[in-house]
Amino acid sequence: MDDPWQECMEHCVEVAKQAGKVIREALQGDVAVMHKSSQVDLVTETDQRVERLIISSIKAKFPTHSFIGEESVAAGAPSILSDEPTWIIDPIDGTTNFVHGFPFVSVSIGFTVKKEIEFGVVYSCIEDKMYTARKGKGAFCNGLPIKVSGQEDVSRSLVLTEVNFKKDTQRFDMMLANLRSILAIPVHGIRSPGSAAVNMCLVASGAADAYYHQGIHCWDMVGGAAVLTEAGGVVLDISGGPFDLMSRRLIAASTPALARHLAGHIAEFHVGRDDADGS
Amino acid sequence: MDDPWQECMEHCVEVAKQAGKVIREALQGDVAVMHKSSQVDLVTETDQRVERLIISSIKAKFPTHSFIGEESVAAGAPSILSDEPTWIIDPIDGTTNFVHGFPFVSVSIGFTVKKEIEFGVVYSCIEDKMYTARKGKGAFCNGLPIKVSGQEDVSRSLVLTEVNFKKDTQRFDMMLANLRSILAIPVHGIRSPGSAAVNMCLVASGAADAYYHQGIHCWDMVGGAAVLTEAGGVVLDISGGPFDLMSRRLIAASTPALARHLAGHIAEFHVGRDDADGS
Repeated sequence: MDDPWQECMEHCVEVAKQAGKVIREALQGDVAVMHKSSQVDLVTETDQRVERLIISSIKAKFPTHSFIGEESVAAGAPSILSDEPTWIIDPIDGTTNFVHGFPFVSVSIGFTVKKEIEFGVVYSCIEDKMYTARKGKGAFCNGLPIKVSGQEDVSRSLVLTEVNFKKDTQRFDMMLANLRSILAIPVHGIRSPGSAAVNMCLVASGAADAYYHQGIHCWDMVGGAAVLTEAGGVVLDISGGPFDLMSRRLIAASTPALARHLAGHIAEFHVGRDDADGS
Repeated sequence: MDDPWQECMEHCVEVAKQAGKVIREALQGDVAVMHKSSQVDLVTETDQRVERLIISSIKAKFPTHSFIGEESVAAGAPSILSDEPTWIIDPIDGTTNFVHGFPFVSVSIGFTVKKEIEFGVVYSCIEDKMYTARKGKGAFCNGLPIKVSGQEDVSRSLVLTEVNFKKDTQRFDMMLANLRSILAIPVHGIRSPGSAAVNMCLVASGAADAYYHQGIHCWDMVGGAAVLTEAGGVVLDISGGPFDLMSRRLIAASTPALARHLAGHIAEFHVGRDDADGS
């Protein structure tokens, strides 16, 4: 039986490659010379330019499909997941890394039908690593199959997360308390690469064992979730319950046992939903 | 005038390349299949094997030189910096990364004469990036010159550090309090790549702006210190005072202003010295 979404996935890989090239060129050119006041503007400009490139290329080929894009949502577009074929796009995942030229910057695209993820593409464009996964057909990096470590023992695990400032003091303290609790299990180590999509692909490749994050968005998760689950890993809610793409909460892990163990060390704080007004 | 240490540096680059190849082979072979009990043994075995390879190769060519090597010191050799030409070696910097195949693993070698660093070589062997620096002659990555970002504004800086568990609760809490204090400045972000030598080279390349660490060793710092200072950056003591290679304390930064600003946010805790008994 023909795969109805194969053509979409092939186009996705091509447009991710093009987008990655634009990002690399921006890094080599503009970013190098704008360490002062224009920094934020340039990031926004490149982010928007790359998202327009991706969406216009896909729309030209699949005019009836829906879109949720980070920059479009920032500009006021709705962020509601419907049953329609939907492309969910993060043009630059890891914008702080992008500003600094820190080597984890990715284009992340996922595709859902009836709210199920059909495929995901994450292009880590400085490393030149193209991660791809089609539901039921495995996960790949630059065409070679990848799989998770299979680690179940939390005390032997390398855990990824974001270590960032939060203006809300209570959330900031809870984030640090969660970090302390996980470090003190103790785990092998904590790493903070700074790109959610790349983090999920590192777990998918077995280079790390788990990743957790509260406050993440659907466009940060969707591509990596496809890659990780096809590589044999799991995505769960931060509570250890079922994963919800619009919930802004994630534990990604090599095994369910590892994910659930980590969930027991994470206190939840309110982050809103991607599909709620005013989130 | 001929450079008396040029031949040493050329040999250093060659031996770092060979060592990196051994590490990559170990990663592709053994590490992949030893996720359970034999993990620690394999790491120690590879660490020791790579250090023997490096030291024997250098000794054959420069039989009168002195050595300080991580594994030799662990086995009881003295760790005293003398005026003699001295090779300071970390065979695998980022051993936890090595165990997991996380992509920052390096061979770090520095060379001192009269206690001054003459050159440094850091080979990030999964990335295949060879960082080199000879005193007064600039810093290079794979033969291309590199330089620091020049960032002076702490609020625009990307800061690297280790986020690790410490059995001593007081030190653990101080490490986390320092992390909180720096995040809340706020800085652009914190990243934790897990290899001290690579961290210093990331700052040297402008991909990050600063790195701080208490409890680091001379073999973790010496190669990266050469690369960073030749790339235009600075190394200071964690207090903001002069750098001491044997002190186990480091702030590495793009500029002195940035280093001193960060020093003001870091509470010091006792870590001993590399050249003290029982440190």
